[in-house]
Amino acid sequence: MPKTATETPSVETLAADCEQAARELSTLPTEKKNRVLRRMADALEAEEEAILAANGQDVSAAREEGISDALIDRLVLTPERIEKMADALRDVASFADPVGEMSSTTKRPSGIEVGKMRIPLGVIGMIYEARPNVTADAAGLCFKAGNAVLLRGGSNAFRSNQAIASALHEALEAENVNPAAVTVVPTTDRAAVEEMLTLNEHVDLIIPRGGEGLIRYVDETSRIPVIKHYKGVCHLYVDRNADLSVAEDLLLDGKVSRPSVCNALETLLVHEDVADDFLPRAKELLGDAGVELRGDARTRAILLDGVAEATEDDYAAEYLDLTLAVRVVDSDEAARAHITEYGSNHTEVIVTDTLPTARRFVRSVDASVVLVNASSRFSDGGELGLGAEIGISTTKLHAYGPMGLDALTTEKFVVYGTGETRHPVET
Amino acid sequence: MPKTATETPSVETLAADCEQAARELSTLPTEKKNRVLRRMADALEAEEEAILAANGQDVSAAREEGISDALIDRLVLTPERIEKMADALRDVASFADPVGEMSSTTKRPSGIEVGKMRIPLGVIGMIYEARPNVTADAAGLCFKAGNAVLLRGGSNAFRSNQAIASALHEALEAENVNPAAVTVVPTTDRAAVEEMLTLNEHVDLIIPRGGEGLIRYVDETSRIPVIKHYKGVCHLYVDRNADLSVAEDLLLDGKVSRPSVCNALETLLVHEDVADDFLPRAKELLGDAGVELRGDARTRAILLDGVAEATEDDYAAEYLDLTLAVRVVDSDEAARAHITEYGSNHTEVIVTDTLPTARRFVRSVDASVVLVNASSRFSDGGELGLGAEIGISTTKLHAYGPMGLDALTTEKFVVYGTGETRHPVET
Repeated sequence: MPKTATETPSVETLAADCEQAARELSTLPTEKKNRVLRRMADALEAEEEAILAANGQDVSAAREEGISDALIDRLVLTPERIEKMADALRDVASFADPVGEMSSTTKRPSGIEVGKMRIPLGVIGMIYEARPNVTADAAGLCFKAGNAVLLRGGSNAFRSNQAIASALHEALEAENVNPAAVTVVPTTDRAAVEEMLTLNEHVDLIIPRGGEGLIRYVDETSRIPVIKHYKGVCHLYVDRNADLSVAEDLLLDGKVSRPSVCNALETLLVHEDVADDFLPRAKELLGDAGVELRGDARTRAILLDGVAEATEDDYAAEYLDLTLAVRVVDSDEAARAHITEYGSNHTEVIVTDTLPTARRFVRSVDASVVLVNASSRFSDGGELGLGAEIGISTTKLHAYGPMGLDALTTEKFVVYGTGETRHPVET
Repeated sequence: MPKTATETPSVETLAADCEQAARELSTLPTEKKNRVLRRMADALEAEEEAILAANGQDVSAAREEGISDALIDRLVLTPERIEKMADALRDVASFADPVGEMSSTTKRPSGIEVGKMRIPLGVIGMIYEARPNVTADAAGLCFKAGNAVLLRGGSNAFRSNQAIASALHEALEAENVNPAAVTVVPTTDRAAVEEMLTLNEHVDLIIPRGGEGLIRYVDETSRIPVIKHYKGVCHLYVDRNADLSVAEDLLLDGKVSRPSVCNALETLLVHEDVADDFLPRAKELLGDAGVELRGDARTRAILLDGVAEATEDDYAAEYLDLTLAVRVVDSDEAARAHITEYGSNHTEVIVTDTLPTARRFVRSVDASVVLVNASSRFSDGGELGLGAEIGISTTKLHAYGPMGLDALTTEKFVVYGTGETRHPVET
């Protein structure tokens, strides 16, 4: 059992312990880190029953509080979701260790050889809401990248997170690694978050995950650098020269497969040349799936009834449920302009078979993930090949888009010489 | 002449113009950017007389104000320094354009192809003190990386910066590029800095360069991400198995060649096995160069007289003048511990011929630039091969160490598919 469950040290004490653990982790051999990660995965599976029991209590309590279905979906753990967490940890174990990686060195005219070496960031603070899988995913990625992590999950998932952390600590202790490497703040008290955000002496980066309110609060309060995304207002643009059966697939996958997540589609943009053909097909498909449409005047003129009028708010909305805004546009340029106005720099999709149009879209659309003829739902660390994902950044500094291992490291310059000086020295 | 010299728009208006210019720059062809950069270099040379005249006025005024020699050294322009600015711009023109660069794409099990494309950050705000060459260096690097730049130089260099900006604007206008791409805040009013730091809607990154006070003020005030370094407390560690003539060269180059800069040496650490041999040689060399030594008890026992006692403050000091702290250490481990305690994460040097010792130093010392048998003075964007340097980061997020072109960009994910969905879709 983690000591954090029985005592209640201050958040600053926890962060200082984390910093010490980070120093130890920074030179831990890769093989040892991988062994710990695989043990963590095994421990999650071994503790499945305890984790599901704790999660069941969290879910019941959340239902009693009248939490929305979208949030319940994020909170619920199943044997499959625990299996996925464990597999993600094993994936991370199988990845190359970024720490210590040297870029190829170049020789400068002065004679010195210059390279860059990848190193950990230090202590990562995670502040997140309902999803308990974040506890394992974040711990695994931070650990592999040589960072300690200070975790502050949502109060709705408190029991689930404690149970997951307890399994992870078993693995750390079995390998004689400082358990402070994965530290869960043992309180649901909001003041703990506030304190955490002042600890810039101990914590190097804050990654908030959750609703826009939480993220704005963290961003405005923190004295520590914050990497965040506010929301995912993702568009699917169906070009004049699109394969409409592909467009149908991407629309259904993007809107219906898991509407509560940030890479789900919120707005459909259709080129006027294919609107008469595509919109009725889209309406039928989406109607069968229970999706409510809100369209502009041209959309409503084509679809006639059952489509509410889309307001400005609709185009800016991250619905996170079975609602879709629709707009007919004159050109791919108009689609890009709509995205510039309403997009959230998260994920944007074009369906087209015209190469120059695809290239223009890719180059000009300012989003962290731009997809051509592929579903917005691929905008995810695992799907993009990063392993479990620590977060998504829709601001451009340090990282842009889904963040994996590399985003949890930085590089220092390493120079080898044979006594070179910058100015001639006469001794 | 820049319009900014005759009107006085608000800083917010300037920043909004900058943002518009950044949008235009983000898709500017490489050849056009290089043409502008070469024209900028030519214009600096053509305007040499005007720039030197303006700088002369700045220097006279600074001398009257009783500004320190270290600051005057930073402020003074000479034909050689103007030539260096122009050459740095030509270097930047000759570099590969990072914007649009695609990393090799990987194919995922789902069938999608995933790559990353390098893109500009947007608008960079520079806040700096005396050195007027920053105006040209920053403008060139930001421009090549597709960013607009909002420049707020020190009041001591106001006339110099205006003269330099005026030359750069000639080049932009001659190539029909929005001159707001390089915007100099046309006032020495401190309130302009304060306003600038609130403009997170328009400015993506703030890079302050100058004294610790300025940088702390910017960091604590800014609502925009800040990349900074406070100071350079750089150490030279002479190992037991060091080539002492190399150590002499690096010591002299690091301490004496330009003591006012942040990559100059501030502390010498000497292994006890070579202290009896090396310290007298060091004292003689440095004494001839006018350097004052402050040492620990063991150093003073060896050197006998003329060496003041080093206090804690000495070991933490960034002297920026001809003073050097000295300490004898038991081992390379003790040297690393001293550096952990007093270092500033900037630049650290070891002189050793023992490979494992060198490797331990490189891996364990937490500094943005770690050098083996080479002078600390190479810790500089130009010397490391980055071209003119936009700044140095001693924090790890986004960039660590001297920042060149790449540090002024970020990457977005680009995905190509053929209709892939994340979940099977049955239509």
